[in-house]
Amino acid sequence: MRAAIYPGSFDPVTNGHLDVIQRAGTLFDKLIVAVAMNDQKHKSTLFSIDERIRLLQETCAHIPNLRVVRLDGLLVDFAKEEKVLAIVRGLRAVSDFEFEFQMALMNRKMEPTVETIFMMPKEEYTYISSRIVKEIARLGGNVELFVPDCVVQALAKKFSVSVGINLSAAEG
Amino acid sequence: MRAAIYPGSFDPVTNGHLDVIQRAGTLFDKLIVAVAMNDQKHKSTLFSIDERIRLLQETCAHIPNLRVVRLDGLLVDFAKEEKVLAIVRGLRAVSDFEFEFQMALMNRKMEPTVETIFMMPKEEYTYISSRIVKEIARLGGNVELFVPDCVVQALAKKFSVSVGINLSAAEG
Amino acid sequence: MRAAIYPGSFDPVTNGHLDVIQRAGTLFDKLIVAVAMNDQKHKSTLFSIDERIRLLQETCAHIPNLRVVRLDGLLVDFAKEEKVLAIVRGLRAVSDFEFEFQMALMNRKMEPTVETIFMMPKEEYTYISSRIVKEIARLGGNVELFVPDCVVQALAKKFSVSVGINLSAAEG
Amino acid sequence: MRAAIYPGSFDPVTNGHLDVIQRAGTLFDKLIVAVAMNDQKHKSTLFSIDERIRLLQETCAHIPNLRVVRLDGLLVDFAKEEKVLAIVRGLRAVSDFEFEFQMALMNRKMEPTVETIFMMPKEEYTYISSRIVKEIARLGGNVELFVPDCVVQALAKKFSVSVGINLSAAEG
Amino acid sequence: MRAAIYPGSFDPVTNGHLDVIQRAGTLFDKLIVAVAMNDQKHKSTLFSIDERIRLLQETCAHIPNLRVVRLDGLLVDFAKEEKVLAIVRGLRAVSDFEFEFQMALMNRKMEPTVETIFMMPKEEYTYISSRIVKEIARLGGNVELFVPDCVVQALAKKFSVSVGINLSAAEG
Amino acid sequence: MRAAIYPGSFDPVTNGHLDVIQRAGTLFDKLIVAVAMNDQKHKSTLFSIDERIRLLQETCAHIPNLRVVRLDGLLVDFAKEEKVLAIVRGLRAVSDFEFEFQMALMNRKMEPTVETIFMMPKEEYTYISSRIVKEIARLGGNVELFVPDCVVQALAKKFSVSVGINLSAAEG
Repeated sequence: MRAAIYPGSFDPVTNGHLDVIQRAGTLFDKLIVAVAMNDQKHKSTLFSIDERIRLLQETCAHIPNLRVVRLDGLLVDFAKEEKVLAIVRGLRAVSDFEFEFQMALMNRKMEPTVETIFMMPKEEYTYISSRIVKEIARLGGNVELFVPDCVVQALAKKFSVSVGINLSAAEG
Repeated sequence: MRAAIYPGSFDPVTNGHLDVIQRAGTLFDKLIVAVAMNDQKHKSTLFSIDERIRLLQETCAHIPNLRVVRLDGLLVDFAKEEKVLAIVRGLRAVSDFEFEFQMALMNRKMEPTVETIFMMPKEEYTYISSRIVKEIARLGGNVELFVPDCVVQALAKKFSVSVGINLSAAEG
Repeated sequence: MRAAIYPGSFDPVTNGHLDVIQRAGTLFDKLIVAVAMNDQKHKSTLFSIDERIRLLQETCAHIPNLRVVRLDGLLVDFAKEEKVLAIVRGLRAVSDFEFEFQMALMNRKMEPTVETIFMMPKEEYTYISSRIVKEIARLGGNVELFVPDCVVQALAKKFSVSVGINLSAAEG
Repeated sequence: MRAAIYPGSFDPVTNGHLDVIQRAGTLFDKLIVAVAMNDQKHKSTLFSIDERIRLLQETCAHIPNLRVVRLDGLLVDFAKEEKVLAIVRGLRAVSDFEFEFQMALMNRKMEPTVETIFMMPKEEYTYISSRIVKEIARLGGNVELFVPDCVVQALAKKFSVSVGINLSAAEG
Repeated sequence: MRAAIYPGSFDPVTNGHLDVIQRAGTLFDKLIVAVAMNDQKHKSTLFSIDERIRLLQETCAHIPNLRVVRLDGLLVDFAKEEKVLAIVRGLRAVSDFEFEFQMALMNRKMEPTVETIFMMPKEEYTYISSRIVKEIARLGGNVELFVPDCVVQALAKKFSVSVGINLSAAEG
Repeated sequence: MRAAIYPGSFDPVTNGHLDVIQRAGTLFDKLIVAVAMNDQKHKSTLFSIDERIRLLQETCAHIPNLRVVRLDGLLVDFAKEEKVLAIVRGLRAVSDFEFEFQMALMNRKMEPTVETIFMMPKEEYTYISSRIVKEIARLGGNVELFVPDCVVQALAKKFSVSVGINLSAAEG
């Protein structure tokens, strides 16, 4: 039974994440998608941890042997507990690469038995990031090409209030 | 009539921005400088949107066929409305390049008729960023080499209060 | 009359090159595709200068206001002679970016009136390079997804001999 | 008497910093470690300026000709005052490199007599950053491999409160 | 039965390669090390294909379920024939990353069923490259820290002749 | 007596090299410029080792405490023999950085007592490389802005023959 873990903040899950999840699913018998409480780079998230988990579960419902969990503590501790062989990370760009490399080396130092492997999303997803998707949604743009349907709707709901405020501000 | 748009947060405009504006001016008949409400990377700006527009207008007053506008919505929507051929972006460094590439590919996905082109500022401006300029000004350094005169004065005004606070804090 | 020049070694022309040519065509009234005698990085080319020009001409026959020329001397001298506004370069990756930046800055130093602008090929072409295409063709792989038809055939002809040699060597 | 300055936010000092300090110590007669009031990238620090200075002093007590100071103003002004020959910076990764390059070029512009030199920490320290160390400590991980003893204890004290909050939140 | 393939030119195998081989061995049931006829970047190799295979076999003799093969044709064709799930590549640096990314995307285009995964060698091996090892050996340096014993000896034998030539040239 | 070594192939010396030499001269009491027999990246050089040494000597004649030497063996062995404290390298770009980092880490592994420090050339020299300078000179371009006078003349002499050949080939 070969298990792997795919950690992230998924704020929100994008088509790029889903592509990595599906690819990782072909390499391992079991995949755990672990949602971190908060993003290590950007302190506050748009969606709550429960919302982010729900959106992932809805999106991945059709994938067998996949479990979405909340990650409270240290990734490597959880990985060891679950006896996973590998941590899976998607690689997009050079700046990604540097940060990912640092994290992977520190994780290895703390827990040498867990490998980190990097996979590439489909090239048409390499430009998608949760951050830019949120920015586009905030400005009223169409994000249907970048995220699953349930996320399109969740983003629309989130930004309906601030769009309203935005409009009245523009009138002032 | 070939128009282009040069978007940014311009918080504040630097000599590097001005150099790109002048270069873009030679390639197109009309140039629109679009000031984004807030910076996509750093949430809060030092100068208000109105201050940033005013500093740009003052600095670019001598350039014909140039218009400074406020960008409220999505860049590609505005670009299409204005029938511009291209979005112009200045390229400085590798980390720039990655983010710019992502933005450009997402913009193209949303609006395939608008191209993004990248131009290089003069090499002596490649190291200038609004962020570092603000940091130097905040610490009382001379920024005359990096920004236009009106920005030098605007920065001095902004930081006179906090410098005062800083001094009394140091005395305490 | 706004003209631009798109220089390269085109050994051979790929779908990525064609994409940049078409995009540049929308920004300028006239486009000159200039084929350098030899590649600055890799001394020897697979196709002769005449073959490379012919393949480009065949591929771009349908594009109006485009001229394919042989570049014997210095790019900036030719650009100035032809009164072009800009040198167009496609950007793919970080390593590209560094070399392109160096070339562009040196060209500007030698001829300040000619700008260099960078454009992005479609994301599905960002991974295509003449070098890898040649390698795949050499090993008998299918390159139909990466280069125009006439190039597929030209590559097949080139490698039919060496493949023969390869086989006999393997037999020995 | 050749002096150099090693500036940073040191929030907190890591084994990577210490390695650079020791290496720089072999090249110069005197080394000044200058602790910046706040990090230029991330506004708020975990440790106060006084805590950061104390941790550095404790850690570097055994190194002769080393002085730890608080940096209130502009680095280059201080460097000139102290008649240092060089600013020392540790280089870890590509993203580091870009930011460091920008800072160094701006510093040179403001004060041409002070050189910036870059040194490499030991390869086993290249992956250590104060940011990731704080993240691991926050999540209850063991950071003994990455920071000096006194920092291990200081981190433990800092996070005992928030860990408590975290637990009760998890119970809710 | 999950198989993977680790391709390369291995001219010669280094401790960095061995580290990746061992790590990949923990993730898959079977590992095929495929030695490419010639390096795609550098046309001529120091060791012949047979020498490179022999050095790998000697070095990996103790690893179960590992096979060293000669790669004559296209990697993806061979990968498909052998029904491997994944191509394994070691990642060291940014320049690596770009080229690896291009190769991986083209391989996926040609054969979508085979994934490429990237793994990191131990950080003390990240600086080792076959090229630099050969350069050091050529200049008479000690390479025992960087390559297995049998490679140390093979390098010594290769360079004994050219060192002789070098000396006589220096005498002239 | 603090000595440093600045190694390179200097094929030929550029204004960028000279700038680094002068900067390094302010940090150390003695500077040794070591000319490697051949470039580690590009096998053959345009200028012979004796020509490259002569051009450096002519260019640096006015700099006190500087010695130009021929490097036959391993850099770290020579550095240790000469009791230098540091190897000085100029940093220009990301691709430079990666290779330089690898070399520096391997050199440290072989000889831990010799540090490598990186210095930045003046920003207007960051785009100059010996390779591009040779390319421009080969095509008849003016290189006076990029290299010292004696190198301008040496390049002109080198390329007068091939330019002749080039012309007659163009006539055919």
